[in-house]
Amino acid sequence: MITILAGGTGAAKFVRGLSEIVPPEEITIISNTGDDCVVWSLHVSPDLDTIMYLLAGLLDEERGWGVKGDTFTCLQAMKRYDEPTWFQLGDRDLATHIQRTKWLHEGLMLSEVTACLCRSLGVRARILPMSNDRVETRIYTPHGALSFQEFFVRERWSSEVTGVEFHGGQRALASPGVIEAIRESDGVVIAPSNPITSVGPILSVKGIRPALVDTPARVIAISPIVGGQAVSGPAGKLMEALGYKVSALGVTQIYRDFLDVLIIDEHDAALSPEIERLGVRVTVANTIMHDLAAKVDLAKTAMECLRTDWGRK
Amino acid sequence: MITILAGGTGAAKFVRGLSEIVPPEEITIISNTGDDCVVWSLHVSPDLDTIMYLLAGLLDEERGWGVKGDTFTCLQAMKRYDEPTWFQLGDRDLATHIQRTKWLHEGLMLSEVTACLCRSLGVRARILPMSNDRVETRIYTPHGALSFQEFFVRERWSSEVTGVEFHGGQRALASPGVIEAIRESDGVVIAPSNPITSVGPILSVKGIRPALVDTPARVIAISPIVGGQAVSGPAGKLMEALGYKVSALGVTQIYRDFLDVLIIDEHDAALSPEIERLGVRVTVANTIMHDLAAKVDLAKTAMECLRTDWGRK
Repeated sequence: MITILAGGTGAAKFVRGLSEIVPPEEITIISNTGDDCVVWSLHVSPDLDTIMYLLAGLLDEERGWGVKGDTFTCLQAMKRYDEPTWFQLGDRDLATHIQRTKWLHEGLMLSEVTACLCRSLGVRARILPMSNDRVETRIYTPHGALSFQEFFVRERWSSEVTGVEFHGGQRALASPGVIEAIRESDGVVIAPSNPITSVGPILSVKGIRPALVDTPARVIAISPIVGGQAVSGPAGKLMEALGYKVSALGVTQIYRDFLDVLIIDEHDAALSPEIERLGVRVTVANTIMHDLAAKVDLAKTAMECLRTDWGRK
Repeated sequence: MITILAGGTGAAKFVRGLSEIVPPEEITIISNTGDDCVVWSLHVSPDLDTIMYLLAGLLDEERGWGVKGDTFTCLQAMKRYDEPTWFQLGDRDLATHIQRTKWLHEGLMLSEVTACLCRSLGVRARILPMSNDRVETRIYTPHGALSFQEFFVRERWSSEVTGVEFHGGQRALASPGVIEAIRESDGVVIAPSNPITSVGPILSVKGIRPALVDTPARVIAISPIVGGQAVSGPAGKLMEALGYKVSALGVTQIYRDFLDVLIIDEHDAALSPEIERLGVRVTVANTIMHDLAAKVDLAKTAMECLRTDWGRK
């Protein structure tokens, strides 16, 4: 059993490769919900959906979000009602948000809703929201706080960042199965996701970080920073704002207390000694997942890292 | 100022003609909400929407409901989640239901929501739901009660009907402006809608029937029954089930206590003496609105009925 801590795009690419070499029944994905937002009164869980659509074979892998071949007819019509339309909800995608909102209103927990949606879509891997409680990633800027989606989508991460908060994280309980998955799996992989706003919210949930520290399973991560910048998205900008080096070394600092192995890109091989001085083993690989073969290769590398006998923790 | 009591399809045809000869600012439409239903947790008001879309130039006049040129992509996707999809919500149409539901959740009343939707769509006529309270048309069959939409859309009005109830009607208050519109307008027109399940729910709302009886304005109706059958839909079946003659005479019996003039079709001219014996004046016209010219002609006939000096009520 393999447990993945996952954000959106980068995690989807990694899970795509992993699903080629590990049976879905042996994969548990703990998904960030700090980006969840309410759009037109509908509950949207962008990271949960990206992974769910990926595993259902529905993801628009080109864009990295939403349903492939989707249309935006309802969104166009919402413009007539002066509703914000910067958050792009496709017509097929909308069915998921309508159904999720309906089930949440009926009293189901987000983890239950996610399980039902996954069952309907034929997803056999287990996808767990990090928490059933609301944890809201807030990006502080000189002009006030933004939700992650406001910062990322609406402002295209152009705002100056002065701080990041995972509001509610301290009080949030991990959703059922999360702590067990970390403690009892054969390996934990932190996907190549933004360490601040994709993995950070997961780590902010009560009990998750201690479980990562304590688990007998090996914990590995794939650096989402290559050659001094993020492979995609605002990870670099956010790390810098919070005082981390924008490098695999900065990633190591963030995960240092629980990380056993960091997979870094070939371009960053020179950083290995510095990372290992922090007590984290390094594996060098091609981490840029341009095609399916590269995704599978990286997944294989990760599986090897979990298996290699480096001695016990 | 002209006030129309309206259901769906037939009313939309009549209002289409009327809007060619009366400025929209002088038209108030009191709409049936007995057919309102909750689909996928969204509040749908079929009759309100038909009239609103018509006046916004968006109605699919061919079908008589929904937005012209609409697509059904979200509906197809909802099938994956095992949601009932017999009630066809188009992608453009969906925007209206999402927005209505959002505003209702925010605490607006249905009449306020309707006004906001109409303003957004550039509708200048006033559309009033008959009530802000829930009135639910129930169709009793030997196999139990059905909502109107279950009977009409899902069962294609094939079930045997043993009774009709407007659940909540006795306690429902007319929405703001409804009673005033009936009392203070220059004429009231009961559109050629199903007298049982389109106009019936409106008449069931507290104070509306007495207002029709008391208003100094002339009250006219257009018979939706021509040649012994309904122009469209289950009006004939429902009238028969409730013991009315399926004819303009049956329509007269239903509206008798407040009706001044009934417009009947040329095919039914022979019924005039019997109808007039019930104390209702008759005007004979072509009531089958096949094209815009016929719609305008019928609207002109109705306006003449309101103006003709037959002596005071």
